[in-house]
Amino acid sequence: MKIIIVGASGTIGKHVTAALQNDHEVIKVGSKSGDLQVDISSPDSIENLYKQAGQFDALINVSGDGHFGPLTSMKDADFRIGVESKLMGQVNLVLIGQHFINPKGSFTLTSGSLAEDPIVLGANLSAVNAAVNGFVKGAAIELENGVRINTVAPTVVEESPAYFPFFPGQTPVTMQRVTQAYVKSVLGAQTGQVYFVL
Amino acid sequence: MKIIIVGASGTIGKHVTAALQNDHEVIKVGSKSGDLQVDISSPDSIENLYKQAGQFDALINVSGDGHFGPLTSMKDADFRIGVESKLMGQVNLVLIGQHFINPKGSFTLTSGSLAEDPIVLGANLSAVNAAVNGFVKGAAIELENGVRINTVAPTVVEESPAYFPFFPGQTPVTMQRVTQAYVKSVLGAQTGQVYFVL
Ligand SMILES: NC(=O)c1ccc[n+]([C@@H]2O[C@H](COP(=O)([O-])OP(=O)(O)OC[C@H]3O[C@@H](n4cnc5c(N)ncnc54)[C@H](OP(=O)(O)O)[C@@H]3O)[C@@H](O)[C@H]2O)c1
Ligand SMILES: NC(=O)c1ccc[n+]([C@@H]2O[C@H](COP(=O)([O-])OP(=O)(O)OC[C@H]3O[C@@H](n4cnc5c(N)ncnc54)[C@H](OP(=O)(O)O)[C@@H]3O)[C@@H](O)[C@H]2O)c1
Repeated sequence: MKIIIVGASGTIGKHVTAALQNDHEVIKVGSKSGDLQVDISSPDSIENLYKQAGQFDALINVSGDGHFGPLTSMKDADFRIGVESKLMGQVNLVLIGQHFINPKGSFTLTSGSLAEDPIVLGANLSAVNAAVNGFVKGAAIELENGVRINTVAPTVVEESPAYFPFFPGQTPVTMQRVTQAYVKSVLGAQTGQVYFVL
Repeated sequence: MKIIIVGASGTIGKHVTAALQNDHEVIKVGSKSGDLQVDISSPDSIENLYKQAGQFDALINVSGDGHFGPLTSMKDADFRIGVESKLMGQVNLVLIGQHFINPKGSFTLTSGSLAEDPIVLGANLSAVNAAVNGFVKGAAIELENGVRINTVAPTVVEESPAYFPFFPGQTPVTMQRVTQAYVKSVLGAQTGQVYFVL
């Protein structure tokens, strides 16, 4: 299978890449790192990525920023950080990618547990993660030629200790379990699913 | 109670207004109709609305557009219709309104069943409705001075027959049940809730 992994060098992405690259042709993508570069917040950059990568069987995205900060001082511009990157970035990877993906291919996006299990400072990510979950449900019933779409929604992962203070009482999940959710999405046959890894 | 209703003249809004205006001071708002005008897609317009309305006890929003159309031909600009109006419009009503609302006040937004129960042509609204649901969960745990926030998530309503063909097999809900969900949010004491009316 030819698999494009956007965010392949990241905390989560490097494990997903390691799990798939022995058995598959993996194209690693980042904004600076990787075999190819993309800025997911730009539709033109995404179009350019797919043109360079050529037809493919699976797209995994493990990139996307959100705004982390107090609601009391949150402004339109803060909220748009998540909207432009983690929401529109992933939506555009699918809207554009649907015209390049092979039949029976799959899209696997990344949302997060904050969609359902909020934390202080996390309102933007709660909204954006939930939006990605909703988009996957809506897109799954319209994608053609057997193309599938799922999202992985992890809580904080064991290799991101900088986030632990913001998740009081939350047991971080192992990289192994998070990675397997991406593998399940790509190698399995389900569609329209939100794989919570909690 | 002083209650601002944005979308007061709409299919749903007029029933919500009728249910509350006898016992409360209701300020009706629309983009063209009402006591005051606002364009929810503009933060400046929202700021101006709150300045004109003055301090208040409850904000109900029953306005907000989304894009309805096939995923195959959906573009960034289509998807942004829902993002700018139903998502950012409602988010900004809260981000700005939190600085004008009275202690123990409430925000009641409108999302919709498509967040969880998608239909063909509805991917934008699935995403945007889900985003509003996630935002309400995130915002609820940060709003200060006992201010609450909920959203009403109806399926298609009985007075919108033009939408029925797009909801095959869906029994429309009565205006009475939808209206009561808004009343429950405003007069009840819950926060962070998504009231599905199905
Ligand atoms: N870490 C967690 O605990 C956790 C938990 C739940 C959800 N998540 C979500 O999982 C995703 C990845 O998180 P992470 O912690 O693995 O992130 P990370 O370590 O910061 O890695 C980000 C990856 O994305 C790439 N990237 C950055 N900006 C990009 C852009 N504009 N366009 C394309 N690629 C870009 C980076 O490569 P370059 O350096 O080359 O740009 C890098 O490979 C995020 O959406 C995050 O919200 C993370
Ligand atoms: N109808 C349904 O079956 C249904 C089901 C589930 C969810 N919903 C959601 O419920 C909400 C209301 O739906 P509806 O069918 O009642 O809508 P509607 O009949 O079209 O009414 C829209 C209302 O919003 C106002 N409005 C329009 N644009 C505005 C803007 N830019 N800024 C502020 N106000 C604006 C209109 O007043 P002016 O004419 O003065 O602008 C009107 O009062 C929508 O978000 C919709 O997605 C509807």
